[in-house]
Amino acid sequence: MANTITYTYERLKKFCEDAFEKFGFCSEEARIITDVLLLADLYGIDSHGTQRLVRYHKDIAKGLIRVDAKPEVIFETPVSAVIDGHDGIGQVIGYRAMEKAIEKAKKTGIAVVTVRNSTHYGIAGYYAKMACDQGLIGLSTTNTTAIMVPTYGREAVLGTNPIAISCPAEPYPFFFDASTTVVTRGKLEVYNKQDLPLHAGWAIDSTGNESTDAAKVLGCISNKEGGGILPLGGSTEDHGSHKGYGWGMVAELFSSILSLGTTSDQTNIGGKGGICHGFMVIDPTIFGDAAAIKAHFSAYLEKVRSSPKAEGRERIYTHGEKEIEAAALRMKSGIAVNVNTVAEMRDLAQFLNMNVEDYLGAEALSIKGKKSIYQ
Amino acid sequence: MANTITYTYERLKKFCEDAFEKFGFCSEEARIITDVLLLADLYGIDSHGTQRLVRYHKDIAKGLIRVDAKPEVIFETPVSAVIDGHDGIGQVIGYRAMEKAIEKAKKTGIAVVTVRNSTHYGIAGYYAKMACDQGLIGLSTTNTTAIMVPTYGREAVLGTNPIAISCPAEPYPFFFDASTTVVTRGKLEVYNKQDLPLHAGWAIDSTGNESTDAAKVLGCISNKEGGGILPLGGSTEDHGSHKGYGWGMVAELFSSILSLGTTSDQTNIGGKGGICHGFMVIDPTIFGDAAAIKAHFSAYLEKVRSSPKAEGRERIYTHGEKEIEAAALRMKSGIAVNVNTVAEMRDLAQFLNMNVEDYLGAEALSIKGKKSIYQ
Repeated sequence: MANTITYTYERLKKFCEDAFEKFGFCSEEARIITDVLLLADLYGIDSHGTQRLVRYHKDIAKGLIRVDAKPEVIFETPVSAVIDGHDGIGQVIGYRAMEKAIEKAKKTGIAVVTVRNSTHYGIAGYYAKMACDQGLIGLSTTNTTAIMVPTYGREAVLGTNPIAISCPAEPYPFFFDASTTVVTRGKLEVYNKQDLPLHAGWAIDSTGNESTDAAKVLGCISNKEGGGILPLGGSTEDHGSHKGYGWGMVAELFSSILSLGTTSDQTNIGGKGGICHGFMVIDPTIFGDAAAIKAHFSAYLEKVRSSPKAEGRERIYTHGEKEIEAAALRMKSGIAVNVNTVAEMRDLAQFLNMNVEDYLGAEALSIKGKKSIYQ
Repeated sequence: MANTITYTYERLKKFCEDAFEKFGFCSEEARIITDVLLLADLYGIDSHGTQRLVRYHKDIAKGLIRVDAKPEVIFETPVSAVIDGHDGIGQVIGYRAMEKAIEKAKKTGIAVVTVRNSTHYGIAGYYAKMACDQGLIGLSTTNTTAIMVPTYGREAVLGTNPIAISCPAEPYPFFFDASTTVVTRGKLEVYNKQDLPLHAGWAIDSTGNESTDAAKVLGCISNKEGGGILPLGGSTEDHGSHKGYGWGMVAELFSSILSLGTTSDQTNIGGKGGICHGFMVIDPTIFGDAAAIKAHFSAYLEKVRSSPKAEGRERIYTHGEKEIEAAALRMKSGIAVNVNTVAEMRDLAQFLNMNVEDYLGAEALSIKGKKSIYQ
């Protein structure tokens, strides 16, 4: 693609880690934040990858994210913990919370850790994968800025509220990471940029009626005039709107409710994030033979993948398959970064007194991106 | 409604309990099974209520359900258990499994119990409610006969795979009980009876193409020719088909996989049920002040309910609200039972040497239902 520049994983990693250190994070924290962002890039979830780097920097500048915050355990039992993130960066808080859930589950078999006063933590799946990488079942959820309108409402009071679950399997783990809205805001923005009408069942305007006008809906959302994105299942109960809305509420329960934190409708208001997360880890050995369970799951997933395809379709994917394929390809062929993002990164590098040519190549010097906040 | 007869809750309870005892269950088991069925009737989920009575009797006659089976704990830790249902009736197995999960969670804070070799257990929500009634968070899931076609497939390899979650709140608990398919088979049957076209995005035929022909789809399913019901989110990823399919897989994971049981694609084949369930209980006190958590959740649910409504809509419901209202109404005004169901119950009563007039009233004697298996 002409409007992208391709970088190796290692090169982006070096740039991000050094940039986050320049933001004020210690090297271990910079490594964690970068690892979360780059997993999104490797998995093809570009909206949550390096393109968010500048946004995190802005949030730090605004005081929304506090670089020096240390997550604090404010309540704890052998199977649980509640952590106050003290407005730190979501990736570090999420990582520490999932580490704690894993540590506890290795002793007790199951653990749940909830978090309040955090900020955007990247892809929910990263944390579920942390558990899965150690042979455990991981679950992670978060609330977000309110953007989901409940069934029959016209004001966003829930977030996109993703839930991710990962479980060991061969040849690759089950990795399910899905917002509980029908689509995310990023999708609306892509359609808006391309002047395409939205699909029916995606979004409503400030009257609560469905709208396929991306610019209008995004305007309503930005100006907090009402309207927003519909739950998975669309606008009415005929297609299960109440189910997606229910899953959004479950995400809220396991993040903001069980941490006594800020519900989505009150997050990111008045310079305060207040984002909440939830993490659960289950050790499959509490059900007997973990190897047999893994083999049983692997066989079933393979059976689903190899079941007959719909006319005109060549593949049935199980969850995580696309991500593993994308990561293998991108580790080999590099990660294509949109030139506007590269221009932002270049301007950020200059702002941070980093050598642009060393980090991003001579190419990055010559591209004309949109005017950035650093110019 | 002219085609229904209305009975009091108590009258249906007496009839069901006595009928289940006549089937061979002890009085405690008959009470449990009836309680599960009648909660469905009270909650307005008629497909899972007393109308299934005759179906359970048939399944016993066929040997699919074994009346004398006792659920057996085959693996256990302080936070978990795996139960073999030995082909008993799902309601009794599910009740015992949830009892065990509650007992464990009261000691440890969290517990998960999985079940294999069970049969249809009624509404998933019943078991989640058992935990909630004791101030705990309850989760229940089950696999079912395969009817969900995975995204881009054309053969059903997952069940409707409902997941239910209930959590204490005021003035009524959060009670979320939803299949992971876009609709259930019952809905297709209703549309078929009324000769209505199905909604787009509900079902596919044996070629894997969407079909709005209820009779055709139901025929495909019954004859196991392929086709089936789509996941929540419909037929393509544009509306999140992969998300509903992912939730279906999560239900499978927590039922058939973690119990090393039968996956949906292999259930109810060759006279063997093999249905699997999963139950989780979390004591909110492991996150600190359970009363504060309940108050926090209650306030948020109220905020969602009272948020602005879409044009033409008067109410936003939170999950469990409709069920509580339906139950209050039906406890007061009775439960309307379709005359065909009453005729089936009458014929069953005669078969079991129960006095029809005493149990179902003189009305029941005179109605002409469809010819039943007992005639």
